[in-house]
Amino acid sequence: MNNPQHNPAGYSIEEGNAASRNAYNWSKKTFANRSGKPGEPAQDLDGSFSNEIRFGAERLGISSDGIGTKIEVAERLNKYDSLGYDLIAMTADDLIAAGFVPTNLSNIIDVNHLDYDVVDQLMRGLHDAANFAQIAITGGEIAELGNRIGGWPGAKMNFNWCSTAIGVLHPSLAQPLSGKTARAGHTVVALRSPSFRSNGYSLARKTLTRLFGENWHDAPYDGPDQFANWGEAMLEPSLIYAPGVAALLDAGLPLHGVAHITGGGVADNFKRVLKNGLGAVLDNIFEPFPAMQRLCEIGGIDAETAYLYWNMGTGMLLVTEVDSADAVVASLRASGYSAQVAGHLTAEPGVTLRVAAGELQYK
Amino acid sequence: MNNPQHNPAGYSIEEGNAASRNAYNWSKKTFANRSGKPGEPAQDLDGSFSNEIRFGAERLGISSDGIGTKIEVAERLNKYDSLGYDLIAMTADDLIAAGFVPTNLSNIIDVNHLDYDVVDQLMRGLHDAANFAQIAITGGEIAELGNRIGGWPGAKMNFNWCSTAIGVLHPSLAQPLSGKTARAGHTVVALRSPSFRSNGYSLARKTLTRLFGENWHDAPYDGPDQFANWGEAMLEPSLIYAPGVAALLDAGLPLHGVAHITGGGVADNFKRVLKNGLGAVLDNIFEPFPAMQRLCEIGGIDAETAYLYWNMGTGMLLVTEVDSADAVVASLRASGYSAQVAGHLTAEPGVTLRVAAGELQYK
Repeated sequence: MNNPQHNPAGYSIEEGNAASRNAYNWSKKTFANRSGKPGEPAQDLDGSFSNEIRFGAERLGISSDGIGTKIEVAERLNKYDSLGYDLIAMTADDLIAAGFVPTNLSNIIDVNHLDYDVVDQLMRGLHDAANFAQIAITGGEIAELGNRIGGWPGAKMNFNWCSTAIGVLHPSLAQPLSGKTARAGHTVVALRSPSFRSNGYSLARKTLTRLFGENWHDAPYDGPDQFANWGEAMLEPSLIYAPGVAALLDAGLPLHGVAHITGGGVADNFKRVLKNGLGAVLDNIFEPFPAMQRLCEIGGIDAETAYLYWNMGTGMLLVTEVDSADAVVASLRASGYSAQVAGHLTAEPGVTLRVAAGELQYK
Repeated sequence: MNNPQHNPAGYSIEEGNAASRNAYNWSKKTFANRSGKPGEPAQDLDGSFSNEIRFGAERLGISSDGIGTKIEVAERLNKYDSLGYDLIAMTADDLIAAGFVPTNLSNIIDVNHLDYDVVDQLMRGLHDAANFAQIAITGGEIAELGNRIGGWPGAKMNFNWCSTAIGVLHPSLAQPLSGKTARAGHTVVALRSPSFRSNGYSLARKTLTRLFGENWHDAPYDGPDQFANWGEAMLEPSLIYAPGVAALLDAGLPLHGVAHITGGGVADNFKRVLKNGLGAVLDNIFEPFPAMQRLCEIGGIDAETAYLYWNMGTGMLLVTEVDSADAVVASLRASGYSAQVAGHLTAEPGVTLRVAAGELQYK
């Protein structure tokens, strides 16, 4: 599974990580350009997906991401008004995971040939998601790039969509959330994910194509949800957690680290907030939502692989204090989210997941 | 030329403008989400490529753009270390045109299949350009998107590259530069462009393909520059104007509007800063740089078409006061740029360009 030539998703996580590290190193060499000036970067956010920049007394976070190959599902179904939730979730939830309340977003749509109606649907969904997340869309660009953009051949328009979001450090926080103040014994609270979010689609599409052929999106979905076909199940939008996490910070509840579960699965993403040699035992994370569970079953995907590439039903993990855990769960539920105590931090390193399939260990 | 089905660049400017306006209208409906809160958008920047957002006393600008199909030229030549200048020029110069000194940039590279060395070259160039522009690269993402990304078939990696830049309103300005304070009689100063920047490549590539065939990049270049072939001539990077404009604002010189000449040519871009019914006569803009001039000649592109799609040697136009014009030119030259007085504003609307080919009128 660690052989980059033969992983089940068809791409190399290791090579991607190496290129990202190298890109970050080039970027870091430019930080001195703003030393002591507006836009000065904080130097201490290695390992986070958000960067802190300072303007006078204001401490802002900035985060960029796209929604990857999930777009192909929308192209297959000719339905574009839910992708805005995925786009905002990717950057807004990276920001809130570092303690920045997302405020603004600028987006870029790269298209092969412009279709006014598809762009209209995309922007309507982005508008709806921005209202949900209390964000202002304060920038945008549509670029017509011809054969530089590909996708599902039958679609009216092929496109890629990415955004950069800005947020402001929550006033209750002295520093961005990084995990540095976490201690052994702290409680971990999980937020349920009802969808794949925008990650793990390479493995999912490979599996669905193997099972149902090229037009897998039309294959009847036989799970307990209301989806007519597998396409609808895979298009289910990302839940944006930022408003719920901001509300618990507003209520004065303590957080010591937050992990947004994106590409790389539960353990790898949670390890980013485990500093000072800490580890974790997570014995009560959520069950995968029905479509993900069903895909594991019919696709013969073992738990080890599934937990490496997919969120498996948990979209965010929050580290809080033992005495505050119930209040954190209650606050998140009051905001409309499914939340539960999922485990605790340990003095020993490594992450242990105790799930239905058994115990999974990550060094 | 106004028929969207038959314009010489092969795409519809009108349809693109309609989709952009519609996208902006959806975005504007989200501005109220930040009303009276951090990240509040200014409501009065219609027609600008930058948006103002406020955090406490800080007034920031944000701008997003990509470098479009110029990337194909880099893929053809297998040379990637100059595109960073194009990427930064697009957003940084949109920001400075509104009076925001660019401070930070976040970038997204979408690739078909990752090539570590190509990304390394891209990021080295971005680093060099960031140092030139005094910007910190404080965000980035690399996404592997398989067949959603296309380009030159022989390239090691196909990719698209976009960025979002942030800037801070120059302390000498009470409001972003918009043209609203401009008056008839004000002087227009031009900054020379030594390259196509990142605009007009659809028409340029069509013309070069017609003249030299699919491998036009290898065709010998016979102009006065040192380029070995047409590929090198077309890859010439964008000059980033932001440091020069920031320096003249630092010196206390007055500006009433600035136009960054991007897609749509000199007159259309300059018209964005002509408010209150003003017009302009520009009788001394720069001559097109040699490669652009040569392409017009051998491609049989008339002046009307060329000035509609290309910058024709002028990359930025600045509106200043008559008494300050010489000082503005001197300041820009001291910063290393080619600058000259190019014309003046008129009480009558419309833009008149007096160029070697004759007089071009734009209502």
